[in-house]
Amino acid sequence: MAKQYMDMNTLKFLLHNVHDLQSVLEQEYFSEHDKDGMNIFLDSIKDFSDKELFPYFQEVDEQAAYYKDGKIIVHPQVEVMMRKGGEMGLLASSFKYEDGGLQIPSMVSTAGGYILDAANNHLGGYIGLTSGAAELIAHFGDDGLKEKYLPKMLDGTWGGTMCLTEPQAGSSLSDITTSATPTEDGFYKISGQKIFISGGDHEYSDNFIHLLIGRIDGAPEGTKGISLFVVPKNRPNEDGTFTPNDVITAGDFQKLGQRGYCTTHLVFGEKEDCRGYLVGEANKGLKYMFLMMNGARIAVGRGAASIAMAAYQASLEYANERPQGRRLNSEGKKDANQKPSLIIEHADVRRMLLLQKVVAEGSLSLALLTSRYLDLSRTHSDENERDRYHLLLELLTPIVKTYPSEMGAVSVSNGVQILGGYGFTMDFVLQQYYRDIRIFTLYEGTTGIQSLDLLGRKIPMQRGKAVELLAMEVMQSIQRAMKFDELKPYANQLGAKLQDIQKVLGHLSKYAKAGDYERYTADANLFMEYFSNIVMAWIWLDMAEEAKSSLVKGDKTYTEEFYESKVHAMKFFFKYELSKTTYLSEVLMNEESLTIKNEEKKVFV
Amino acid sequence: MAKQYMDMNTLKFLLHNVHDLQSVLEQEYFSEHDKDGMNIFLDSIKDFSDKELFPYFQEVDEQAAYYKDGKIIVHPQVEVMMRKGGEMGLLASSFKYEDGGLQIPSMVSTAGGYILDAANNHLGGYIGLTSGAAELIAHFGDDGLKEKYLPKMLDGTWGGTMCLTEPQAGSSLSDITTSATPTEDGFYKISGQKIFISGGDHEYSDNFIHLLIGRIDGAPEGTKGISLFVVPKNRPNEDGTFTPNDVITAGDFQKLGQRGYCTTHLVFGEKEDCRGYLVGEANKGLKYMFLMMNGARIAVGRGAASIAMAAYQASLEYANERPQGRRLNSEGKKDANQKPSLIIEHADVRRMLLLQKVVAEGSLSLALLTSRYLDLSRTHSDENERDRYHLLLELLTPIVKTYPSEMGAVSVSNGVQILGGYGFTMDFVLQQYYRDIRIFTLYEGTTGIQSLDLLGRKIPMQRGKAVELLAMEVMQSIQRAMKFDELKPYANQLGAKLQDIQKVLGHLSKYAKAGDYERYTADANLFMEYFSNIVMAWIWLDMAEEAKSSLVKGDKTYTEEFYESKVHAMKFFFKYELSKTTYLSEVLMNEESLTIKNEEKKVFV
Repeated sequence: MAKQYMDMNTLKFLLHNVHDLQSVLEQEYFSEHDKDGMNIFLDSIKDFSDKELFPYFQEVDEQAAYYKDGKIIVHPQVEVMMRKGGEMGLLASSFKYEDGGLQIPSMVSTAGGYILDAANNHLGGYIGLTSGAAELIAHFGDDGLKEKYLPKMLDGTWGGTMCLTEPQAGSSLSDITTSATPTEDGFYKISGQKIFISGGDHEYSDNFIHLLIGRIDGAPEGTKGISLFVVPKNRPNEDGTFTPNDVITAGDFQKLGQRGYCTTHLVFGEKEDCRGYLVGEANKGLKYMFLMMNGARIAVGRGAASIAMAAYQASLEYANERPQGRRLNSEGKKDANQKPSLIIEHADVRRMLLLQKVVAEGSLSLALLTSRYLDLSRTHSDENERDRYHLLLELLTPIVKTYPSEMGAVSVSNGVQILGGYGFTMDFVLQQYYRDIRIFTLYEGTTGIQSLDLLGRKIPMQRGKAVELLAMEVMQSIQRAMKFDELKPYANQLGAKLQDIQKVLGHLSKYAKAGDYERYTADANLFMEYFSNIVMAWIWLDMAEEAKSSLVKGDKTYTEEFYESKVHAMKFFFKYELSKTTYLSEVLMNEESLTIKNEEKKVFV
Repeated sequence: MAKQYMDMNTLKFLLHNVHDLQSVLEQEYFSEHDKDGMNIFLDSIKDFSDKELFPYFQEVDEQAAYYKDGKIIVHPQVEVMMRKGGEMGLLASSFKYEDGGLQIPSMVSTAGGYILDAANNHLGGYIGLTSGAAELIAHFGDDGLKEKYLPKMLDGTWGGTMCLTEPQAGSSLSDITTSATPTEDGFYKISGQKIFISGGDHEYSDNFIHLLIGRIDGAPEGTKGISLFVVPKNRPNEDGTFTPNDVITAGDFQKLGQRGYCTTHLVFGEKEDCRGYLVGEANKGLKYMFLMMNGARIAVGRGAASIAMAAYQASLEYANERPQGRRLNSEGKKDANQKPSLIIEHADVRRMLLLQKVVAEGSLSLALLTSRYLDLSRTHSDENERDRYHLLLELLTPIVKTYPSEMGAVSVSNGVQILGGYGFTMDFVLQQYYRDIRIFTLYEGTTGIQSLDLLGRKIPMQRGKAVELLAMEVMQSIQRAMKFDELKPYANQLGAKLQDIQKVLGHLSKYAKAGDYERYTADANLFMEYFSNIVMAWIWLDMAEEAKSSLVKGDKTYTEEFYESKVHAMKFFFKYELSKTTYLSEVLMNEESLTIKNEEKKVFV
């Protein structure tokens, strides 16, 4: 087991120095908080994670959740997570005071969630999803629902879930069939099956509050006929007792990774006695879900970023301790009489570690930046600014969901490689990170879905307004970086890439204008890789510029080596990663159409 | 469980049409074989795999090998593999008649091993390693060793292993410490520990013959003091009984994948009664190992290729059966009233499937080509031709080990993605392929080691002779392809890439000439990715050219659709994969040095 799972210095440097949490705290809505208070909150989460989460990380995997006699058995640490998490305010922290929350910025709850996930990504979801379900009630539910459910959810007594997926409808929510029949008593009778329900049932909560989407009888076809319901596992009675609500736990999916985080199969209304309570208005369920989606997708990206970081720490530790091989001398030979080098001295190991570092730290920075946009889109005093931040958030949401998940998996695989054969054994933790992170490109909309969202919706949104706003942000970073000779060449490179984006979009939009939307989006995944890579170059230039400024100012918050290492990592990103956009641009501009189905040509013979 | 795990048509098309097995069979050494005989042999392997291997594929994973009371417990199908494999001649097939073999070409044993591995990659290794160990005895052992060990190894009664790795010395064989003390009776007393010994012990063989490397007392330091020994688990007596040889099984590594294939920890000579028998001459052990290395590395690439293929078949089957979502209409919308499409109709799913296809089929083609070179380097009547094929083989060996392993893992991950959330569950087989294939970049020299071998040894070998010979082969393919208008643009692209290689090598060799070997090899992994990608473009152009010729000739061996699909796949490779070499070339020519250790600069802070 590795000793470290994350780096608080980098987290705080990003939070305060690069992404200026202070400017968010200055908004009226956050007026009761200050920097010190936020740091204390994060330090307490780190302390909790050190003691209650990280030590159980391999155990929750080995003692995976499983189904037995209608129940899901999970690791006892799930109870600690829910109870102590509730006490510490981890569930309620980002809620409004009036809903029983602490009104802390999303930037800080992202940072907190990041620490929890880095320590143990199997456990954080139990409170994360409960909090997410409660958020839907808080935003769209009536006072009755809020009073009945929020307090017990936010103190960790009851679990919460999101029930979207059905066996026949995965990514395609328009095809869900779970039905809701109105009754004269105001509630709906729910009937249907939901799969892949994370944290859907276990022995450490005596109730589960499912936020479920279904169709009210006679509702329109497709996404326009989907409504959102609160469906408790047990109906709370006035006297504190429960009436079972006909929600059956039918199974627990056994998985490649995150095996301590149960993934249930739930059956609603088999005895026709399952009651659902409409949230907000009928047929607006998907809209409500989508209003919460930015936050949910940031949380997924944050989770992947945290695993990438924990894996980086584990590989780094190994590379610093393992002797193996020798550096080449000036004749290109190794001297067998010499003591073996530590593997961190080999260029190729350093390359892999640097890749892990730029992906892990860059992904964290992106998650904090999008959280900042989320905060400012909700709380900025100026409406125009709120709109601007909202557009930026909309544009970056599919990217913060995707980049850490896709490149995180690649970086963890490099982490496995650094350990050689040991990396493949259960004696070392890398294989667990490798399995765990593989779900993130599938959670909350697959990479394919995110890429369609980016190219098909977010880029054309308001005639390209969001891209324009982003380009302005990037230009400002470039200008700041141009002040430093050392950063100039990189700033110029990024500027050239900004122009290349226009060329690529100009090329692709020809298809959209001609009505060939299938062609327009056929390579959406490659566009995602291309665009997000350039976004990450911006993220790294900003980080390097802040580090360089601190060096020049003689800021002693962190060591000179710390600042220098950020500049070095930026250079690595530009040389080894940003360069990929050269080929991606080439592919995106290539006119040859090879992936669209053509009835006359069989491709898979 | 998927229904198919490989495609016999593609295998036979590659074997006979693209790589012209006939021209190998025409060598004197293979004179007793013909095409029909070879096909019958392969069909019998397919039949055996259908019945005895593929049906147990998920079971061998679920009932993983484990250590108990000094023994390793494996799945009972291991016995079937050894016994029936022996009967069918799977172990002996490539051996000389005089050693009890069938003298079949390496091309055919590669094809056969491919079928076995595609059906069940956990089981093939038990016979593969036994055969490999026996090969060392056959080539370098004296008649006494041959008579004593070969017959029982080749009929599957005894297992064989390669004992190289030690806990303190992974990739760095120069640091092994297992000792061999000469005795007056001719044998050596062996003492030491070996780890990661595949197939090192189990209940279905009553003896294991370990081919072990160690140092004779007083031997020179480093790789020049390594000798090769036969170390049986039990010493066979004249009367057919055994004397235990003080080889203790100390454990079985639990692993991410290939869990049915045991990976043991062996202790030799704890009671000072472990006898080893020198193979060939003292201090030449590593040389002998390396003489067998080309074949061993082809086998690893073949294994990875087979998993990539099996995963492709499983994803393809799912994509052909799973309805989900709808194609976009001319307004860029989906019509919810329409029946959902099969996911194979979505461009992005087709892109992922095509990636799987080009990696899986291309890797197989590369494994067959290198096997062809191996055959001709051994059996061609003309010595110059033997030398030429040997150089080509030397150059392509690190590539056939690496490309299928690295890109195979990427392609399997795409396969997981095609299944969406189901891909992450144990209910579908993709997660198993994802875990299994992860070892291949570590087996038999990691990607880092292979890349150093390619750039540091194979490229400069005989002043670049091997690259020259390869370029001539590629030029011939280009000329053949130029006859077809449809293939011309691709042939031209490949020609340009050949020239680019010269530019890149010219740039890198400046460092070598200046004595800066660390710099020369610092980006060896990227050079591997770059060079192997271009090799694969050649592999695909050749395949497309053969398919196109068959179409033009009206050859009805396979359907027109089959041939067309190969041409289509080639185009896909050029557009989506070969294009990566643009950026890789850019990185390799970039002067910035960021990964070499500099004492004055801390990078990992």
